[in-house]
Amino acid sequence: MAKILCVLYDDPIDGMPRSYPRDDLPKLDRYPDGTTLPTPSAIDFRPGDLLGCVSGELGLRKYLESNGHTLVVTSDKDGPDSQFERELVDADVVISQPFWPAYLTAERIAKAKNLKLALTAGIGSDHVDLQAAIDRGITVAEVTYCNSISVSEHVVMMILSLVRNYLPSHDWVRKGGWNIADCAARSYDVEGMHVGTVAAGRIGSAVLRRLKPFDMHLHYFDRYRLPEDVERELGVTWHDSVEDMIGMCDVVTINCPLHPETENLFDASMIARMKRGAYLVNTARGKIVDRDAVVAALESGQLAGYAGDVWFPQPASRDHPWRTMPHEGMTPHISGTSLSAQARYAAGTREILECFFEGRPIRDEYLIVQGGHLAGTGAHSYSAGDATGGSEEAALFKTH
Amino acid sequence: MAKILCVLYDDPIDGMPRSYPRDDLPKLDRYPDGTTLPTPSAIDFRPGDLLGCVSGELGLRKYLESNGHTLVVTSDKDGPDSQFERELVDADVVISQPFWPAYLTAERIAKAKNLKLALTAGIGSDHVDLQAAIDRGITVAEVTYCNSISVSEHVVMMILSLVRNYLPSHDWVRKGGWNIADCAARSYDVEGMHVGTVAAGRIGSAVLRRLKPFDMHLHYFDRYRLPEDVERELGVTWHDSVEDMIGMCDVVTINCPLHPETENLFDASMIARMKRGAYLVNTARGKIVDRDAVVAALESGQLAGYAGDVWFPQPASRDHPWRTMPHEGMTPHISGTSLSAQARYAAGTREILECFFEGRPIRDEYLIVQGGHLAGTGAHSYSAGDATGGSEEAALFKTH
Repeated sequence: MAKILCVLYDDPIDGMPRSYPRDDLPKLDRYPDGTTLPTPSAIDFRPGDLLGCVSGELGLRKYLESNGHTLVVTSDKDGPDSQFERELVDADVVISQPFWPAYLTAERIAKAKNLKLALTAGIGSDHVDLQAAIDRGITVAEVTYCNSISVSEHVVMMILSLVRNYLPSHDWVRKGGWNIADCAARSYDVEGMHVGTVAAGRIGSAVLRRLKPFDMHLHYFDRYRLPEDVERELGVTWHDSVEDMIGMCDVVTINCPLHPETENLFDASMIARMKRGAYLVNTARGKIVDRDAVVAALESGQLAGYAGDVWFPQPASRDHPWRTMPHEGMTPHISGTSLSAQARYAAGTREILECFFEGRPIRDEYLIVQGGHLAGTGAHSYSAGDATGGSEEAALFKTH
Repeated sequence: MAKILCVLYDDPIDGMPRSYPRDDLPKLDRYPDGTTLPTPSAIDFRPGDLLGCVSGELGLRKYLESNGHTLVVTSDKDGPDSQFERELVDADVVISQPFWPAYLTAERIAKAKNLKLALTAGIGSDHVDLQAAIDRGITVAEVTYCNSISVSEHVVMMILSLVRNYLPSHDWVRKGGWNIADCAARSYDVEGMHVGTVAAGRIGSAVLRRLKPFDMHLHYFDRYRLPEDVERELGVTWHDSVEDMIGMCDVVTINCPLHPETENLFDASMIARMKRGAYLVNTARGKIVDRDAVVAALESGQLAGYAGDVWFPQPASRDHPWRTMPHEGMTPHISGTSLSAQARYAAGTREILECFFEGRPIRDEYLIVQGGHLAGTGAHSYSAGDATGGSEEAALFKTH
């Protein structure tokens, strides 16, 4: 009988009835690459409900308790006195999310003597010190593809919104004015612009596919080349370095995982290589860009806009400079937690738990670390090492 | 020697140097249907500059004055004491824009004894009483296709933003909070949803083409059927009535011109036929929907969101209910006046003026009314009659 410690974001109206704007979710058959959506034996939730918050419990309680396990759910994740750190000492499984990351640093892993499985209910396991997991033989798994399309939609939305100057124009509506000149003076069409993605995995290639009919010129950098027929179909140009690509791009979108090789990739010198007035969209991880270099580039005009929904650490502090910098189109970390994505990552979490408890193999594409080394998707997309440094700062912040 | 009266929007920083975020515009060869971009003999402006405002003068002054004509440019367009109405009495040509429409009602046309050409520097000539123009033999022309792609980009941006709940989520960034549950509880993926366009002309079909790789199910109503190979390529379903289409759509986008047959098309009873929680995006014309029915539907939950950038009359009053209704994603009327579009409509305006003054035929696709009847694009897309009723209300409002 295992103890499952699950860290999710708060639902501030917990206990009050919540109504949803829509009655159902579209039915999807498969992921775009033909692989199946999550296949748990059953689900105990209504697709379309909030599942990723404390009250939603990922729809897991009935399943876990009826099998004799203990489920502890909390949002209190930061600092040595947090419930997370207190409950961690005898937890067998930790479930966490990128949106509200329970940072599993080497220190915390050292305290978690029973920990066998660190499960990300979403995609991106950089909040886990993968090197420490490798060294301890802990399995790290995530629900690959569950929200890749969600994020790709967010990226396209943010590119269009930055280039067309949506948010400042909407502000004129709220202010009661009609200042067309002010709206238009920063508004362009994306048609004919050059856009490049840093990495063309599931998200990056979905972004390219969605931008193609906008008649943009498409570019990518990736350490793995796309199949030739895909390159031809998309009409996309491969570059052998990020530096080479960004110099010719009007829009750059970052879609690589965070690991030691991508941490701080977009620092001041990289941003200086971009075209003046380029747009940068980062829905990957906050630590891939240098926080203050982004602010400086927006203030100087080197960047015409920055959008994304990833910050470091998370939650972002009330006075994080990205909240008030000019020409920003930020969201809190939500691109991968639409209600549509929640139904998939909740089902995928259950699938992984069923495999784990029944001794069946976890899908190879869900694996990041297993048996003391990078495995599955981890071996393809990550490098060993640790990218959690600095996460203790999250304990300093209290938001909403 | 002619008098050209040109009504454009104000530039509130007129006289101060304006800086632009970007150094140039992408070069485009042709419109997507293969027709050429505007072909004036020359242009006297820098593509990428603000041209649609009073200070920009559509880049026309040098050309017109060097040919002995008189150019009067004003933003003062509403009410009997406006400069527009005073200058109109002896104007040969009126140039106006949808974003800041100089309403050419029958009464005004009756006063404009010399008027021969009403030229829309943009697309959509519903601010002209077409019936009165037909009766008087006035030519009405617009710069067809100049901003169709601009608007289609705006539509896709707004669909994604409504469905993914972008603007309220961005508000959390500004407020200093991190309320993921509140953001996510109204956020969905568009993947798998059904989207329908009312009309599939240049804008509507460009919207369909852009939405196809999002794996949405595509629908359209139009009085003209798309070619069979285009229907097949897009995988789009035709419906023989708006009523039939909207009942199965999660998202409806309006892309038809305003004329007497489309005025008030989306009234309370039409909106009641939509799915609960559907999204409505209207970048066509404000009068196509019933103002108060939209507000009521958002308040009741019948609509989950409404976005667009068209109002009636324009400018919208400071207390227009669409500025404060829930779940709105409005902009002032800017979708077709990006700097990219401005370069095209300024060049197209000059092309039409050159044809007019040199006695050469205006491109057929630019024509709405000529020789006492609907002509060119007018015959395809409009019905005779008048849709300017109520425009005198614009005189009541002063904004920014």
